[in-house]
Amino acid sequence: MYDLEKLGKNAVKAKYKAAKLTTEEKNKALKKCANALKSSYEFLIEENNKDTSKAKENGISEGMVDRLRLTQSRIDAMAEGLLQIIDLPDPIGEVMEEFDRPNGLHLKKVRVPLGVIGIIFESRPNVTADAFGLTFKTGNAVILKGGKEAINSNKAIVKIIREALESCGIDPDVLQLIEDTERETTTRFMKMKEYVDVLIPRGGAGLIRAVVENSTIPVIETGTGNCHVYIDKDADLDMSVKIMFNAKTQRISVCNAAESLLIHRDVAKKFLPEMKKALDEKHVELRGDAETMKILGDCVVPATEEDYGKEFLDYILSVKVVSGVDEAIEHINKYNTHHSECIVTENEETAEKFLDGVDAACVYVNASTRFTDGFEFGFGAEIGISTQKLHARGPMGLKELTSYKYKIYGNGQVRQ
Amino acid sequence: MYDLEKLGKNAVKAKYKAAKLTTEEKNKALKKCANALKSSYEFLIEENNKDTSKAKENGISEGMVDRLRLTQSRIDAMAEGLLQIIDLPDPIGEVMEEFDRPNGLHLKKVRVPLGVIGIIFESRPNVTADAFGLTFKTGNAVILKGGKEAINSNKAIVKIIREALESCGIDPDVLQLIEDTERETTTRFMKMKEYVDVLIPRGGAGLIRAVVENSTIPVIETGTGNCHVYIDKDADLDMSVKIMFNAKTQRISVCNAAESLLIHRDVAKKFLPEMKKALDEKHVELRGDAETMKILGDCVVPATEEDYGKEFLDYILSVKVVSGVDEAIEHINKYNTHHSECIVTENEETAEKFLDGVDAACVYVNASTRFTDGFEFGFGAEIGISTQKLHARGPMGLKELTSYKYKIYGNGQVRQ
Repeated sequence: MYDLEKLGKNAVKAKYKAAKLTTEEKNKALKKCANALKSSYEFLIEENNKDTSKAKENGISEGMVDRLRLTQSRIDAMAEGLLQIIDLPDPIGEVMEEFDRPNGLHLKKVRVPLGVIGIIFESRPNVTADAFGLTFKTGNAVILKGGKEAINSNKAIVKIIREALESCGIDPDVLQLIEDTERETTTRFMKMKEYVDVLIPRGGAGLIRAVVENSTIPVIETGTGNCHVYIDKDADLDMSVKIMFNAKTQRISVCNAAESLLIHRDVAKKFLPEMKKALDEKHVELRGDAETMKILGDCVVPATEEDYGKEFLDYILSVKVVSGVDEAIEHINKYNTHHSECIVTENEETAEKFLDGVDAACVYVNASTRFTDGFEFGFGAEIGISTQKLHARGPMGLKELTSYKYKIYGNGQVRQ
Repeated sequence: MYDLEKLGKNAVKAKYKAAKLTTEEKNKALKKCANALKSSYEFLIEENNKDTSKAKENGISEGMVDRLRLTQSRIDAMAEGLLQIIDLPDPIGEVMEEFDRPNGLHLKKVRVPLGVIGIIFESRPNVTADAFGLTFKTGNAVILKGGKEAINSNKAIVKIIREALESCGIDPDVLQLIEDTERETTTRFMKMKEYVDVLIPRGGAGLIRAVVENSTIPVIETGTGNCHVYIDKDADLDMSVKIMFNAKTQRISVCNAAESLLIHRDVAKKFLPEMKKALDEKHVELRGDAETMKILGDCVVPATEEDYGKEFLDYILSVKVVSGVDEAIEHINKYNTHHSECIVTENEETAEKFLDGVDAACVYVNASTRFTDGFEFGFGAEIGISTQKLHARGPMGLKELTSYKYKIYGNGQVRQ
């Protein structure tokens, strides 16, 4: 049986040391790690070749193989990612609140690392470097579990970073990789509550469900996005088409892409044909209700109940005609995944009603849902997009990888 | 099978309405609920009698029966609790951050309710009114699952509050009680992720463990406290005795009571006999290591490994002589439950080392651990004390019962 216990113990030891590192020490190490990656093209590509060859042998699609592949420019991008983290402010040690009590106690609420973070992710090996950079800058230790198909690449990246850390006098166990690829090991990892403070799954709906169902460690749920665009009767036609087209087609495989269009009955006849014309350019399949079909004709596939609840991640869009903002809100709250939702309208009152009423991390008026992203929000980084309400909601940057503690200063106070 | 699904659906409907209530509407309703409780002494005590009689029949200890009992003054205290919540500021709608992006997007991070909160608690029926007051003021809907032995009392309290809410035109489903007392129902409740946003267990270690292990809903872990007092070589003797005595004996059954004393070798001989003299007044049993036994003699019970990890909630204290603050930190981080820890010292450098190095929600210098409490911190309320690092740490007041959303205002922005 793979010795997860050992990784847990090492991580706990490392987290106490990581929490004490100064910003300068962390930045120096990040730079060293970035340089180490850049001077290891050959080794990294060699190890990566093992993964891509195996993937091809296993008949995995070219798209998937491409996601796996490391090239010189992709390695440079990983290194660049680490260098960018250097410039971000270090949140650790920030005094978030400070106050006195009538009994003379002085309280400081101070930002501290979360401790040991577990991250379970799929295929793309660049996540390894990204996740290390963000968790390290915030004084955490991280245990990574990557996808089976990228195991050699992940091992190679971790090896290089750990060596670079050691050369800076930093405990390399701030970054550990679970090298065993058995599912049973991953399931055991999800129950290592004694060692791991937070677990973040990054990947498809299946992975996330498995983590939520099996983990005893507190989880930050990320990712799944069934995002809607609601076109109100007071919407600008051109803007509506532009936003819907962007939200649906600018990048179909991501969680902040739109999957559903809701349109006000009063403008459906006028707007839907224009919308279709634009979406046809990308051959988007429309799955609509009876009213949509009546307006657009046979090119619309009849939408099932299931279609409205689906994250297609494809050139498919569900469509529904609604009676107004109230029905739109109700529909969205029934089917959405609490990720990103948009209203297009020139009516401020209607907009506020939508923003208040829709239960989602990010609610937009007159802008594409595609902006839900740590970089677009100006956080300078992103470890994922939270779709739960506990701890963090929406894009998670450095601050979202921290907790806090209360430091309380007395001079002999006891409770009466 | 008990229809939990129905409660879930009702709660979801109610949460959207609750989120829209104004502060004034909420406060008016809280007042009405408080008055309704006060004018229902007879009914409440009658229903409560059913619970206490049954408890006596079942041979439950007088202490436990007393915890169950409702009296006129206890009902007044419940009502008073609701009235106090009126005076607390309403956190909902607070703009926590507001900023612009270069592309013209305007972002507001706004405080919103968590949604539907589930609370699973044991015996004391007053928790029913408390939990309602705090979750309602923060615009949430709550589903309560109380202890089997208090079922009639809880039903009665919930009935009165729901009627008062209805008379104010508020959806009474903001407060629902699971009336079925089968364990299977509680286990099903923990998996109602579709309806419940957060689950908070309040009770003993067994209950909390069961929730953490079974829940698929995000949990805020509360309560268990294996708290330590470390007496440094630079500590004031009188203050040390006073703090240790208070932390251990002022109220033994609570999570912020101290369970363990660590003492610096250099002062052990001088301090331990004084400490013992004070603790003898309350007949505190000492379980110590070899050095402690050598100093204090046979009155000390030899401490086992298990003793150091135990929350006694009794007149029992584990004792260990340590070589200094480093060993104290290491010992605490090995055995504690991340609740509240204290150092007594006049040395500021040693104090900071302890405050930084100990992994706990609340770290004290020269004050009793007993201050870890929402009221003592000035929050005006407390739903529990979080011992996890996600979302909230330490005492949780109103703010800790909220989440946030991003409202994003554009004028046609699309992603490039």
